[in-house]
Amino acid sequence: MPKIPPVKGTRDFYPAEMAIRNWIAQGWREVSQRNGFVEYDGPIFEYLQLYTQKSGDEIVSQLFSIPDRAARDGRDLAIRPEITPTLARMVNQQINALPRPIKWFSIPRLCRAERPQRGRLREFFQWNIDIIGSDSVLADAESIFTAIDYLRSLGLKASDVVARISSRSMLAELLMALGFAREDLDKIYVLLDKRPKMTESEFSKYAAEQISDADLLDKMMRLEAVQSLDELEPMLQSDAARKGYADLCELFKTLKALGVGDYCEFDIKIVRGLAYYTGPVFEIFDRGKSLRALCGGGRYDNLLSSMGGPQVPATGFGMGDVVLELLLAEKGLLRSEASHLDFFVINADTELDDKMLMAVSRLRSQGYATAFSYKKTGVGKQFKQAAAQNARHTIVMGRETIESNQITLKNMADGSQKELSLDKFLENPEEIPNS
Amino acid sequence: MPKIPPVKGTRDFYPAEMAIRNWIAQGWREVSQRNGFVEYDGPIFEYLQLYTQKSGDEIVSQLFSIPDRAARDGRDLAIRPEITPTLARMVNQQINALPRPIKWFSIPRLCRAERPQRGRLREFFQWNIDIIGSDSVLADAESIFTAIDYLRSLGLKASDVVARISSRSMLAELLMALGFAREDLDKIYVLLDKRPKMTESEFSKYAAEQISDADLLDKMMRLEAVQSLDELEPMLQSDAARKGYADLCELFKTLKALGVGDYCEFDIKIVRGLAYYTGPVFEIFDRGKSLRALCGGGRYDNLLSSMGGPQVPATGFGMGDVVLELLLAEKGLLRSEASHLDFFVINADTELDDKMLMAVSRLRSQGYATAFSYKKTGVGKQFKQAAAQNARHTIVMGRETIESNQITLKNMADGSQKELSLDKFLENPEEIPNS
Repeated sequence: MPKIPPVKGTRDFYPAEMAIRNWIAQGWREVSQRNGFVEYDGPIFEYLQLYTQKSGDEIVSQLFSIPDRAARDGRDLAIRPEITPTLARMVNQQINALPRPIKWFSIPRLCRAERPQRGRLREFFQWNIDIIGSDSVLADAESIFTAIDYLRSLGLKASDVVARISSRSMLAELLMALGFAREDLDKIYVLLDKRPKMTESEFSKYAAEQISDADLLDKMMRLEAVQSLDELEPMLQSDAARKGYADLCELFKTLKALGVGDYCEFDIKIVRGLAYYTGPVFEIFDRGKSLRALCGGGRYDNLLSSMGGPQVPATGFGMGDVVLELLLAEKGLLRSEASHLDFFVINADTELDDKMLMAVSRLRSQGYATAFSYKKTGVGKQFKQAAAQNARHTIVMGRETIESNQITLKNMADGSQKELSLDKFLENPEEIPNS
Repeated sequence: MPKIPPVKGTRDFYPAEMAIRNWIAQGWREVSQRNGFVEYDGPIFEYLQLYTQKSGDEIVSQLFSIPDRAARDGRDLAIRPEITPTLARMVNQQINALPRPIKWFSIPRLCRAERPQRGRLREFFQWNIDIIGSDSVLADAESIFTAIDYLRSLGLKASDVVARISSRSMLAELLMALGFAREDLDKIYVLLDKRPKMTESEFSKYAAEQISDADLLDKMMRLEAVQSLDELEPMLQSDAARKGYADLCELFKTLKALGVGDYCEFDIKIVRGLAYYTGPVFEIFDRGKSLRALCGGGRYDNLLSSMGGPQVPATGFGMGDVVLELLLAEKGLLRSEASHLDFFVINADTELDDKMLMAVSRLRSQGYATAFSYKKTGVGKQFKQAAAQNARHTIVMGRETIESNQITLKNMADGSQKELSLDKFLENPEEIPNS
């Protein structure tokens, strides 16, 4: 029978890769918890409609859908491409029972049917944190802070990564003040979103194709070239624009007070595509700009109500594991969860089988990672096996163990050994010498 | 817009349910590690063919399949209903690079399109451990021991759960010695597998329908009624039967030496359906028999070679989370991962915003789970919020914090409080009194 390969764009997590994945997830979990978030999760699949009704167009085009045979109720399913629709569904279901603000995090496995390429796979893990029930800028700041807090904890400095921050609502007001119609805004968002991937001349050409009015085009190009919040101030012509601007200034002030101001910059081109964002939005990039965004998020005050729930404000972000791992590898900051064996029990006498198994069992029940050889081979081969499994200590049980209850304990790091009473050792393995 | 419900047979893990799921997974992980297993994982979907070629018929009929549009290479995909085919694929891919025995564990999310019922859902988590590259009975014993080691660590006693153990290879030899043809064996396996779910008279009727030869039927019924290994001894008529019997006796002896003999019983009716098992097989049940099997596994020496790899022996098991959780709830043994907040910082003075944020940030960067209120409300309301979030301590920052750098630290458990210097506290929060 021919071997069947894995599906392209998926990953096999052999123990070495799994140890890295667990280390990343554990870091996400710890930083979430210290920032006051609690963990949730939903199913890996939902009704297809949950995604087609509200996710961005790009995401909908990448759904892995499952025909309804299995659901047996006439509705297609889809593997989750993001967890926010599930979050909105879950929160809407219990909105009156949940004390606010709801501060939740999750580390979902997500699947998108896209062409695999550097930094993009068809299956990945994404850290999500969300704060639901607060319209305060403090919540937006806490969301961005939590993302930076994690990256900073890995050793990434403000010279390595940057959070580019803007406001969708402020941008909308600015564009309308320039003369754009509300129905043209989506087109401009797409334009700005694509800006960083284009050269200046490519962008000029593309923008001219999208905006036929020369005056409007010129105004948009000047807005796109804005580098700082100060430059924007004279352009504020409505209360809504001034409110969005003031919130953004407050956001930067709060991030500075939280000690991460140097990781944050204003960038008017950050719009987060066509998804459900309504207020402050941000993306985190490597300063070297060799990679896609590490993280993206923002405020989405209308999502819950658009999915049949009440009007409840919300803000949050998602950070995938694929780009993150590329960056950490590049910077030499990739680590993995340590795994080790405390004891390898070597059987030097076939009469000892039962005694050896008893010792193994006693050590394990006290929490020590313990192994032994299934094969009755020589002591030398068993030592090799212990070394191959990175055992910290070996215990040799031989003739003396039968005669006088003695074992030989060896520290595999420094080679030192000691004769011990088996019974006393099993009663208190923590007090072993050289450990 | 109408609310879209979750798909039947899936679970929403709100924080309380997630804490239980994490506690179960953490227990699986710890017991795996102390028994010398290392973690791996594969993708959530594979080519459909990986499952249709080797899994049991029941599993194939329950596949969630995904049409090939997304894969774009003419082959359908399926969400994994079990992880063993992925394991076999991964091991076959690197068989020459992996030192044996390969002792791996995984905690995959699995999906099966079946009718949801008590103990069976369409999405669940399953602890898998496998030992590949050893044909020793010690490996089978280690597999069964690991399952029991976990259950025992939860507080389940030999009076609560039992591992029922038999041997597929020995049973085959016994049946053929009675006169059954090799091609009839699958029929008998199904018969025996269904036995525990039927009354005696239902079973007699069903068996008579399946076995037309009265003499063979009578022999099968006498075999099925066998209660102990001793009763079987006179029935061993081939070397292969005697080998299977001797291995089974050795298996029980080893489990006894490992200290879990009282959890183990021989049961000739254990065959594990029509899946890929070739030697010792087992299932673990609650003694009360109110639930489905908690765990099932056995030896599968031909799977790797049947999937295009070399002939390598293997043994292992799977334990799902659904039945386990039902049993633990029934016995009052269900726990959850503790989550708490170390500090809730209360802002009693609006002039303090920046100072409060700095304190929050400093505490978090030292690893303390810390929260504050987004709303500028009264101190009393903030205390209530701290209590609702199970904060261990509150820190009140007020007028004194501005005047003389003083904060009030309150232990929320006993209500005691203390005035402290903010700077000193932030330098060493671990030395806080009453913590």
